Amino acid sequence: MTTNAERRRPGRPPGTSDNRDRILETARELFARNGIDKTSIRAIAAGAGVDPALVHHYFGTKQQLFAAAIRAPIDPMTVIRPLRDVPVERIGHVLPTLLLPIWDSEMGKGFIATLRSLLAGSDVTLIRSFLQEVIAAEIGPRIDSPRGTGRLRVQYVASQLLGVVMARYILELEPFASLPVEQIAETIGPTLQRYLTGELPGSV
Amino acid sequence: MTTNAERRRPGRPPGTSDNRDRILETARELFARNGIDKTSIRAIAAGAGVDPALVHHYFGTKQQLFAAAIRAPIDPMTVIRPLRDVPVERIGHVLPTLLLPIWDSEMGKGFIATLRSLLAGSDVTLIRSFLQEVIAAEIGPRIDSPRGTGRLRVQYVASQLLGVVMARYILELEPFASLPVEQIAETIGPTLQRYLTGELPGSV
Repeated sequence: MTTNAERRRPGRPPGTSDNRDRILETARELFARNGIDKTSIRAIAAGAGVDPALVHHYFGTKQQLFAAAIRAPIDPMTVIRPLRDVPVERIGHVLPTLLLPIWDSEMGKGFIATLRSLLAGSDVTLIRSFLQEVIAAEIGPRIDSPRGTGRLRVQYVASQLLGVVMARYILELEPFASLPVEQIAETIGPTLQRYLTGELPGSV
Repeated sequence: MTTNAERRRPGRPPGTSDNRDRILETARELFARNGIDKTSIRAIAAGAGVDPALVHHYFGTKQQLFAAAIRAPIDPMTVIRPLRDVPVERIGHVLPTLLLPIWDSEMGKGFIATLRSLLAGSDVTLIRSFLQEVIAAEIGPRIDSPRGTGRLRVQYVASQLLGVVMARYILELEPFASLPVEQIAETIGPTLQRYLTGELPGSV
């Protein structure tokens, strides 16, 4: 049996998990409807009936809250930050060596499950926001040459990586699903790099 | 009001749509459980309680029945057959120009809807069977160089094409979703061709 004293641990206000759940639910709803950029922590707090400070206290930054809302197993910055030190002409080769080990891991299972349920439902807007507003916003400007192509370059990269997720984790095609990370990285690396910095048909 | 005389048109036995539905349902179940190769028309007919001749009469070949079972809007052979005349070193370039116009069409909407519901449910085995037993069986032997790599080459191609489906039709990433077919074909063609006939890391 749980006593009141146990439930109300110091530093943890009563009703905590209710508040957390309500924040996450509101966040998911607003992110899906308006995207990440146009959704403020303030609006989420208002929708959940809590103070904005509490949202920051529980979830940190807006991006971290987004990751929690889509049940992402890790903070996207753990992938994005190391990429900042990678020279632009190496990103395509390095990206799969960062992503595949995470997807292959125990944490990755949650990510795949989330992706599948988002794809099945109407919440594709959440994945779209993440790709456009987090990934494209971060990497797009570094590969925006000729000017205006950055966004499309990221989308070509996404088209290859999303397909890897489908083939390896959802369809589990063999032998693809069991290949060592390095082998897949070596094979798709040149593809990703060409999409990022190579010639892009249709853009002058 | 529909009269009995109207319902029982000449040449169309009573209970037709019941039989069709039962055949499709049984087919879906057996294809999902055992794959295409190991499922016979005879077994499907037995499961549906009809004569095998009736299955052929309604649906044609086993592959056509499979296409109907997964609600594919077109017979896969309409894509596979023209590829037979394409030299192996051109397949990667031609493939997207065959597939994208179909996916872009009205018929394609049904395909995308089916794919999404298959992905969400547990019927991924149906897509896997289709890729392994229809596509890989058809194209694999032509690109099996060095020997034993044909299957994996097809899976790399699938990984890029499935990602295009996701980005263009499910996530509808813009501008990717609105690009002309030729532009995407020109950009991913070299990728597909390299996966089909280029050097494949890890295989000696």
